[in-house]
Amino acid sequence: MKPLKSLISLEEALEVCHQQAAPIEETEEVDLVQAGGRVLARDMTSNVSVPPFDRAAMDGYAVVAEDTFKAGKFNPVVLDCVEKIYAGQTPEVTLTSGRCSEIATGAVMPEGADGVVMVEDTEQEGDRINIYKPIYPGENLARQGEDISPGETVLHAGDALNPSKIGALAALGIPGAEVFRKPRMLIVPTGDEITEPGGKLKEGQIYNINSYTLGAVINEHGGRADLHPVVDDRMEPMVKTIRENLSYDMIIFSGGSSVGTRDVIVDVVKEVGEVLFHGIAVKPGKPTLLGKVENTLVLGMPGYPASCLSNGYMILLPILRRMAHLPPVVERTVRATMERRLTSTIGRHQFYTVRVVDGKAYPAFKESGSITSMSDADGYIQIPAQVDLLEKGEEVEVVLL
Amino acid sequence: MKPLKSLISLEEALEVCHQQAAPIEETEEVDLVQAGGRVLARDMTSNVSVPPFDRAAMDGYAVVAEDTFKAGKFNPVVLDCVEKIYAGQTPEVTLTSGRCSEIATGAVMPEGADGVVMVEDTEQEGDRINIYKPIYPGENLARQGEDISPGETVLHAGDALNPSKIGALAALGIPGAEVFRKPRMLIVPTGDEITEPGGKLKEGQIYNINSYTLGAVINEHGGRADLHPVVDDRMEPMVKTIRENLSYDMIIFSGGSSVGTRDVIVDVVKEVGEVLFHGIAVKPGKPTLLGKVENTLVLGMPGYPASCLSNGYMILLPILRRMAHLPPVVERTVRATMERRLTSTIGRHQFYTVRVVDGKAYPAFKESGSITSMSDADGYIQIPAQVDLLEKGEEVEVVLL
Repeated sequence: MKPLKSLISLEEALEVCHQQAAPIEETEEVDLVQAGGRVLARDMTSNVSVPPFDRAAMDGYAVVAEDTFKAGKFNPVVLDCVEKIYAGQTPEVTLTSGRCSEIATGAVMPEGADGVVMVEDTEQEGDRINIYKPIYPGENLARQGEDISPGETVLHAGDALNPSKIGALAALGIPGAEVFRKPRMLIVPTGDEITEPGGKLKEGQIYNINSYTLGAVINEHGGRADLHPVVDDRMEPMVKTIRENLSYDMIIFSGGSSVGTRDVIVDVVKEVGEVLFHGIAVKPGKPTLLGKVENTLVLGMPGYPASCLSNGYMILLPILRRMAHLPPVVERTVRATMERRLTSTIGRHQFYTVRVVDGKAYPAFKESGSITSMSDADGYIQIPAQVDLLEKGEEVEVVLL
Repeated sequence: MKPLKSLISLEEALEVCHQQAAPIEETEEVDLVQAGGRVLARDMTSNVSVPPFDRAAMDGYAVVAEDTFKAGKFNPVVLDCVEKIYAGQTPEVTLTSGRCSEIATGAVMPEGADGVVMVEDTEQEGDRINIYKPIYPGENLARQGEDISPGETVLHAGDALNPSKIGALAALGIPGAEVFRKPRMLIVPTGDEITEPGGKLKEGQIYNINSYTLGAVINEHGGRADLHPVVDDRMEPMVKTIRENLSYDMIIFSGGSSVGTRDVIVDVVKEVGEVLFHGIAVKPGKPTLLGKVENTLVLGMPGYPASCLSNGYMILLPILRRMAHLPPVVERTVRATMERRLTSTIGRHQFYTVRVVDGKAYPAFKESGSITSMSDADGYIQIPAQVDLLEKGEEVEVVLL
């Protein structure tokens, strides 16, 4: 058995992760409908005008604005209506003083008109239109290119595509987006004791949890998780698994990074590549390893489900989001007060799950082997390495799970 | 032309939405890997123990705890190691006083043992093990069922499946989850002036934006968006579109809910069903309609892309999440101070987009017809109907887009 010799701090570990996680350079084309959450791979410069023509911004009457200047609530200006212009139609009559055209929102402005009187400020009497309010030139219309002009850079490489940015691509008439491909992550459970859900447990066996928790984290944060069958936790099959899967951006082993005689991940990684760190001063989740084999990162995660998932949030997530060109996650948090005193190990950054009821944070953490430590929790608090005590009643920030 | 006669407040509109949006009752089975974000349709009660057996919580030596009581840093207790137990194996030797078994984390505890001494507190000399630290009975082991016991309700109907809750299902050995099916939303753009991105614009035409912005909102928040081709904005084709698609939970028309002569959505909905409201005191997005045809909700959204999307967030999102059994969205927000004074229309709830730079909120809103009002923004602020002014320097909460 090989106890961990020294731990690096969470901050150091995250710095190594940041250095090693190379943002994916390859790109792919996705339909706009599928583009939500994807990251744009290049600047998008418009070669069209949006709107493509001067258009009415209101339903009403296109006019020569000057004609309306003397209009008032009790002394309307009266204009002749010469045309009805619907959206999508081409106006045929050029306006001159004394005339107007009924126009719908979004319709092309007729030649000669320089403003629109809202329908609410008019009254129709056959083809004669009473105008009760003056407008200034340019009122209630949108000029060609007012939204987007040709040559304008509308979106930038690295923009995460939210609904409105997808809308901007649609406005340019672009049916798909060139985005960075998702980081491809392979999750490999190790150990004879692991069986897939749906199968029957033999004596001494437990179900595979970590592939599913980590897979959900990865799929939720811009990655693509593939699930590998359980691998025997010996050198040879683990080395083989790495060698056969170097097309992945990252291979994540769960189990096998602790200090038991069978915990061979360190030797495995040394055999085919380089160990970057092994052992982080966090609680739970200390025996975590990061290595590199050719261009593939190898993450060795503890087998315990709460440890594995907490490191999924603390270590895997920053690597994943950096590879995916996504900014650090903006967490959803609530503030709460500790319902009881909580001690923490000095020198270890603690990840501690809580339930939040009526603004009070109740401990939810049982032990790192228990998935209900996480699944019964509303969120978690983090206790920095140099803090060893949270008092009852102290205010904490709870990151929602 | 038919001006909107009266507006209902945002609060009233949301109350109607809440009443009318029935949570989906139908369920479906999804693989655990695909279950992220889905909502569990029934309570999950365990019929197994997790862990299924007493197991070692640390790498070390399984012992009779009483044997270690006199152990100390300088006077070890010496025990005979009689077996090596790996995870996944069945122990064969029953322990008695004076004996121990080397054991790996997660392995089945041997009969007779009631605790584990951590490897760090031992020294091996052949088959003789020096124990340097006493343990109490039960130390460093997890009892059968300690995480989850048979009969325990582990998850509840209505739980949104986050990574840890998916992990809890895996722990029970369940390979799939019974979840509520997603609300099915059909988005129908209307009007001759609309062309799909990728096509060529004719005179007076613009690209369809709203199907893509609303589609992204729907797909991001637990719904399934289907995109219908552009429909002519006349009674007959619109009525036909509704009648043919009553298997959807909601049909969303974009364009056609304003007051132009061609804006026929009100008449269309009256023809086949009931108008619940038409016109909300919000800015932008006033001419929004909610109706019901049989069991299908019909939402009439303004054609202007900023108006349409802001109502996508304010009106559509609460309906969607309620149908999907999802809790109201927890928004990601930042606090900022207004970089300039902003006036708002009294009596209208205003949705106003801003860019946030160095803690200052700069106006990003151009006009409701412009998609860049949204796509250039970092987020939006909401100004309640009874507020008509935000002063320069005033602190606001910005909801990130």
